[in-house]
Amino acid sequence: MSFEINRERFIDSMKTQGSIGGTENGGLHRLSLSDADKEVRDWFLDAMEKEGLDTRIDEMGNMFGRRSGTDSSANPILLGSHLDSQPHGGIYDGALGVVAALELVRSLNDEGIETSHPIEIVNWTNEEGSRFQPAMQGSGVWTGELDLETEYNKTDQNGNRFEDELERIGYKGDIAAEPQTDYDSSLELHIEQGPKLENNQKDVGIVTGVVGLSWGAVTFYGAAEHTGTTPMHDREDALVAAADLVIRIRRSGGTLGKETVASAGYMDITPNSINIVPEEVTVTWGIRDPSDDIVGDGRENVLKEAAAIADREGVEYEWEDRARSSSIRFSERPVSALRDAARTLDYDSMEVFSGAVHDAAKVGQVCDTAMLFAVSEDGKSHTEEEYTSWDDCYSAANTLANAALNLAE
Amino acid sequence: MSFEINRERFIDSMKTQGSIGGTENGGLHRLSLSDADKEVRDWFLDAMEKEGLDTRIDEMGNMFGRRSGTDSSANPILLGSHLDSQPHGGIYDGALGVVAALELVRSLNDEGIETSHPIEIVNWTNEEGSRFQPAMQGSGVWTGELDLETEYNKTDQNGNRFEDELERIGYKGDIAAEPQTDYDSSLELHIEQGPKLENNQKDVGIVTGVVGLSWGAVTFYGAAEHTGTTPMHDREDALVAAADLVIRIRRSGGTLGKETVASAGYMDITPNSINIVPEEVTVTWGIRDPSDDIVGDGRENVLKEAAAIADREGVEYEWEDRARSSSIRFSERPVSALRDAARTLDYDSMEVFSGAVHDAAKVGQVCDTAMLFAVSEDGKSHTEEEYTSWDDCYSAANTLANAALNLAE
Repeated sequence: MSFEINRERFIDSMKTQGSIGGTENGGLHRLSLSDADKEVRDWFLDAMEKEGLDTRIDEMGNMFGRRSGTDSSANPILLGSHLDSQPHGGIYDGALGVVAALELVRSLNDEGIETSHPIEIVNWTNEEGSRFQPAMQGSGVWTGELDLETEYNKTDQNGNRFEDELERIGYKGDIAAEPQTDYDSSLELHIEQGPKLENNQKDVGIVTGVVGLSWGAVTFYGAAEHTGTTPMHDREDALVAAADLVIRIRRSGGTLGKETVASAGYMDITPNSINIVPEEVTVTWGIRDPSDDIVGDGRENVLKEAAAIADREGVEYEWEDRARSSSIRFSERPVSALRDAARTLDYDSMEVFSGAVHDAAKVGQVCDTAMLFAVSEDGKSHTEEEYTSWDDCYSAANTLANAALNLAE
Repeated sequence: MSFEINRERFIDSMKTQGSIGGTENGGLHRLSLSDADKEVRDWFLDAMEKEGLDTRIDEMGNMFGRRSGTDSSANPILLGSHLDSQPHGGIYDGALGVVAALELVRSLNDEGIETSHPIEIVNWTNEEGSRFQPAMQGSGVWTGELDLETEYNKTDQNGNRFEDELERIGYKGDIAAEPQTDYDSSLELHIEQGPKLENNQKDVGIVTGVVGLSWGAVTFYGAAEHTGTTPMHDREDALVAAADLVIRIRRSGGTLGKETVASAGYMDITPNSINIVPEEVTVTWGIRDPSDDIVGDGRENVLKEAAAIADREGVEYEWEDRARSSSIRFSERPVSALRDAARTLDYDSMEVFSGAVHDAAKVGQVCDTAMLFAVSEDGKSHTEEEYTSWDDCYSAANTLANAALNLAE
């Protein structure tokens, strides 16, 4: 027997949230702790209260709403994601997981269905990390990985403090930003942000883990010289060195492992003039793979290549790690619940690793956790062109609902 | 018989001008039409008037001072360079040529030496092109290559108009910015801005021409995707394409001709984030060689490589020329005068092509012209580390003086 959420109301709610901070190109510009974020939070809080949920806001602005279970000793199932967006992002990233969780409790209320375990829905603060760094700030403090006071003092590019902005929009709660109970398990629905489901013509993706990651930067130091008067053999060209590294970083994506991705996304060039040999160039690397060993090998390769390039070009170099995270394997119990739900609903699913990190990676430190991916057209995200059809949104939300009911029963 | 200028006064004047807009690191920050530029112009005007020169300021702020000759039918010899500097540049670039010209007329006056031809000294407005573009703006209007009204309406990065700034500092003259007479010939002394003289342990460089140049830009258009979730084969990475082109541009510097220099000095990357595959990257090329054919081949190579790279990486591309200038061969008569002067003074000289463009390249369109280079330590210029010893400054100024006297006699 499968359960179905109210499709029409679910889509309406997706549209409503998408209009709060919506852009004229059909995207979403709802930076964390902005006026638009306040507005969507007010809407979400009101919706939770209308359903009679026991709501609470914690010190980080994380918003929870609990629907009671029948077994007073059973721990809650936690469902949700985030309502903030990237600058000029899309309306699905994050919001889909929150609205699907909300719609589950609404549909359960409609039909008077009780569950043994409580069901708790959540909107995590600042998952995106674009206005205040790092990403997953709300869930990071909640699990104890980040320090509250440190995060309160983070500022955006205009110098606004995180805590001040949280107070300004009225979402600095009194409750400690930490688990207020043990949780039975947790599920997060999110768009894939990649093209695998679409390329394989699947309905939903059962996420079995999150790839490991190494981020870092290499800076080459050459000499600024006049491009017209300096013989080629006298040059110490930091951009030639950095360009060489870009190519080698990219190549490691094709060779280390079949799922390895490797990119140089950022470069800073000084003085950056058509007429001056570049003196100082910083280039970043980003390498991800389900295997931590492969990520480690990739990082070592970058550093080895940087050393060889510096030697060859006659430039100096320095490097630094910027982020490192181990790969995560999600827990079998919630993964099975998702797998079973997709099968019961007759949705064609495939198991995938997530190439992006999500709040679920934090929550997984606290309780058994898994994720579900919705199809994302062309894999686009963090752009106004991000698109998931209502059919695909609905399939994913229904899979989440049935998996949650499996766990809550 | 050789003539010697007053070494002590010459060095004093170099120091004096170097202190106007001088930086604490011993460099010079004297942008065109700035307060510091006004101050050095006032100093130069006063110095010319003290020597009894017939001074005039033209509509572009170009400053001239003429010392009469004995033959009323003889055309003047024009000597000079520019007093403006790059941001945080050096005290020698440009100023050396102006101060050497000034010192020649002072020393001639001291010794009561008359010349057949008049000797006219000049300070060209905005040679550097860093505050207002293009470079060689004053001499460019003077030769008719640039349009006065167009240049008047150029603005700096704060929106200040060129003409307004010229008026503000009191150097918008009444005289038309064009040659007021025929000139017999012209000489410009400048630091080399490259290391050839020093590497070859020469005292001065006789500049026989200016290399031809091609500047342009290629923009690659890929797709912005999440670096963690987009499989390598699905990427359209504009930075990988641009990096490949940087390497190939650099390689053409080593292969097209033995004097060919080729550089990518500038890159603009969008969105330039560690976590997003670069969508749009512009990279510039700059190629110079004494042979216009080689410059043309180099430009063609860049465009051919850009097409091949775009095809290989699955990205789109566009390109544009940004500047193109033919190589210049200086006139034999002033070149000979410089060669003879160096020989008479027993200075070890070598003949070089200039890799940089100077006011002399403009003036050469009006009369027989040549240039003289002073040794530049490590070839550094456009930086506070720019350095030419007083001995090398003096050798060059003396060579200029004697060559000018040869021509003026």
